[in-house]
Amino acid sequence: MKNEKYGKIFYKLLILKIIEAKEEGIVFMKALYAQSGGVTSVINASAYGVIDEARKNGLEILVGINGVTGILKENFLDASDLDIEFLRYTPAGAFGSCRKKMKNDSDIEKLFEIFRKNEIRYFFYNGGNDSMDTAWRVQMEAQKRGYELKVVGVPKTIDNDLPHTDHCPGYGSAAKYIAISMMEAALDLRSMYVDSTQVFVMEIMGRHAGWLAAAAGLGWINGIGADVILLPEKPFNKDEFLSTVNKIISEKGYCAIAVAEGLKYPDGFFVSDMGFTDSFGNRQLGGVGFTIAGMVRSELGLKTHVAIPDYLQRSGRHIASKTDIEEAEMCGRMAVRYALEDNYGVMVTMERVSNNPYQIKYSSVPLNLVADQTKMLPKDFYEGYTVTDKFFEYALPLISGEFYPPFENGLPSYKLINLGKK
Amino acid sequence: MKNEKYGKIFYKLLILKIIEAKEEGIVFMKALYAQSGGVTSVINASAYGVIDEARKNGLEILVGINGVTGILKENFLDASDLDIEFLRYTPAGAFGSCRKKMKNDSDIEKLFEIFRKNEIRYFFYNGGNDSMDTAWRVQMEAQKRGYELKVVGVPKTIDNDLPHTDHCPGYGSAAKYIAISMMEAALDLRSMYVDSTQVFVMEIMGRHAGWLAAAAGLGWINGIGADVILLPEKPFNKDEFLSTVNKIISEKGYCAIAVAEGLKYPDGFFVSDMGFTDSFGNRQLGGVGFTIAGMVRSELGLKTHVAIPDYLQRSGRHIASKTDIEEAEMCGRMAVRYALEDNYGVMVTMERVSNNPYQIKYSSVPLNLVADQTKMLPKDFYEGYTVTDKFFEYALPLISGEFYPPFENGLPSYKLINLGKK
Repeated sequence: MKNEKYGKIFYKLLILKIIEAKEEGIVFMKALYAQSGGVTSVINASAYGVIDEARKNGLEILVGINGVTGILKENFLDASDLDIEFLRYTPAGAFGSCRKKMKNDSDIEKLFEIFRKNEIRYFFYNGGNDSMDTAWRVQMEAQKRGYELKVVGVPKTIDNDLPHTDHCPGYGSAAKYIAISMMEAALDLRSMYVDSTQVFVMEIMGRHAGWLAAAAGLGWINGIGADVILLPEKPFNKDEFLSTVNKIISEKGYCAIAVAEGLKYPDGFFVSDMGFTDSFGNRQLGGVGFTIAGMVRSELGLKTHVAIPDYLQRSGRHIASKTDIEEAEMCGRMAVRYALEDNYGVMVTMERVSNNPYQIKYSSVPLNLVADQTKMLPKDFYEGYTVTDKFFEYALPLISGEFYPPFENGLPSYKLINLGKK
Repeated sequence: MKNEKYGKIFYKLLILKIIEAKEEGIVFMKALYAQSGGVTSVINASAYGVIDEARKNGLEILVGINGVTGILKENFLDASDLDIEFLRYTPAGAFGSCRKKMKNDSDIEKLFEIFRKNEIRYFFYNGGNDSMDTAWRVQMEAQKRGYELKVVGVPKTIDNDLPHTDHCPGYGSAAKYIAISMMEAALDLRSMYVDSTQVFVMEIMGRHAGWLAAAAGLGWINGIGADVILLPEKPFNKDEFLSTVNKIISEKGYCAIAVAEGLKYPDGFFVSDMGFTDSFGNRQLGGVGFTIAGMVRSELGLKTHVAIPDYLQRSGRHIASKTDIEEAEMCGRMAVRYALEDNYGVMVTMERVSNNPYQIKYSSVPLNLVADQTKMLPKDFYEGYTVTDKFFEYALPLISGEFYPPFENGLPSYKLINLGKK
């Protein structure tokens, strides 16, 4: 509320300034926005915030297609007159994302050549840990080269593992998806266990942190959720796990399990290690759900079912959190405001002011403090195989509210823009 | 519309009859309802229809917990005064389901003993192929024993494979879930393919029929959906499949694949055969998504992601089809009306009157014509690896409309009733 009021006054003053300046024939500077890393169901709401705020402040706004990968090919889209309403309800990266890390000097050289040529003076990069590293390098290089450039990072990750911010845009919606899916699957299991499946396993994203897997327990606030949550923060003990499942089965007859893809043995080996590396040399993870179910089936003799929502959990815009969408948009707006206030080389953050009523304030942190860092689930957010009241207090406000996309033909009317040839 | 009008007149007459009868001190007969087989997100809407209609018609209505499994233990719940509103928005089997087939005579003997003792005169069994077989056997045995019993089947299956009905309650909602999930995952893939995942594979339920897998193509009506659909109806040809994927990749850079769990090689072997049998001696299926992704990765060298929604697709009430929910409820009501009209030993069916506007009429078919039959996807509903306009015409009305459950704490407020000890 307070933020909104502040924002409105701020806008009005700026718009007056712009009108004045335009009348005096002043040419405004160009801003560049791009998306990077694994996408979310609300990253486009941040794009909406950046673009709308930039336009309101008289900036010319370009969008780089596929993050720095497209920027290095000068693959831009002029968003000055783009109809951007669809960004508020379309999931995934409307402008394409990338996994590129600019590792070599020639990439950096090329980037600044393109920035100079296009007179880019603001750069808004929307991503997670790796992307903030890229943003930080670009800011540092600009200073080194004496090129006037203001870089502001817009946070984004379903993994919720960025430090120095209470939470990340994208997390609330993915957590809501996971919580609801686990409720529905557990109800299904409860219907079937008497003479069919007794154990259901859902494999959940989140890389090295258990924020998302923990969300599988949130349904208990309404009466049903995961009975066992296997977090990467708690080294996997097979015997203890199996005896826990056994105990639950003997008590209630069925057991719903959430397992984080990043689950590790005490020696650091991934439980999900598929036993081979991909073409880039990374160990392929996946199938931890089947590994866990296999243990339960072979050692306890119980019938199992396994779900792996994969991309569905990170792009499930149809059941996104309203709070998350609004915050994602606001993070985009704040990035523009900070840059205009000469607060750059930073990422937008959210600080929690209070839980009841839920209130946050926007702030910022130097990019280098975020780059390549991982925030794990705090120890007081879980206990044994379940989550604590502290986690409920933390997470419930983030999944609050629904903001359904418009529907047409019984399906969401998501919009696609042409991203050009690959 | 016409049906509704008919229904209203019918009700009024019946209610008058009941009031009259009650005043005369006539005791009404008992009806028993139970759920069976794999559950759906709308099976409880059918329960709502049966219970509400039975009560309106003065029947005493009992519910069997866990289908015939619970009935054989006399595990009943008196639904005469139960608050049933939650059945309209809570997924899975609110009263528990079962997979039991009554194979031996002692089960049948026991069943009729319990029916007699409780004076059950109407039996409404809500399930798929196997359950209709059970219902048929019970009806036949009743006649053989001279026990007055009216059995009516209420159709239910996400697989949509029951014959003699245009479609089955449960299918529309699961199809909607699949269609939306594939749209969202394909948008995600489209964001990432430039330097990350190029092929996404979603494994879809449906046993031997491709009705549900076909739904992964429906998103194209709004611009994005599955590029390749692997149906059980089309024997799997690995070389042809891989060259199709390769062609799509070279054209657009990414490829979203839907694969039915029941996909078979030309010799009839399941592509998903996991190589072992479960404790009941059934071959365990599963992981066909990983099998397909493995082929793409190893033979085409492309990075893949795999999703297996499993139970999520059949209990995803949060995004169920309004049309499906309304029809599920109506199928329940019609079962009661048919029984009261002395039309028994049948299953309720739906006939499509027209597509534009979409209109169905309710009818019935003898149970023995449904039992253990499977309706496959018609040949003119698919072509190569995609679905045809005819399939769109058929399926789009079934996924039409949204009927969101109520939310509390950011999550659906599904309700659970006590099902007793296991």
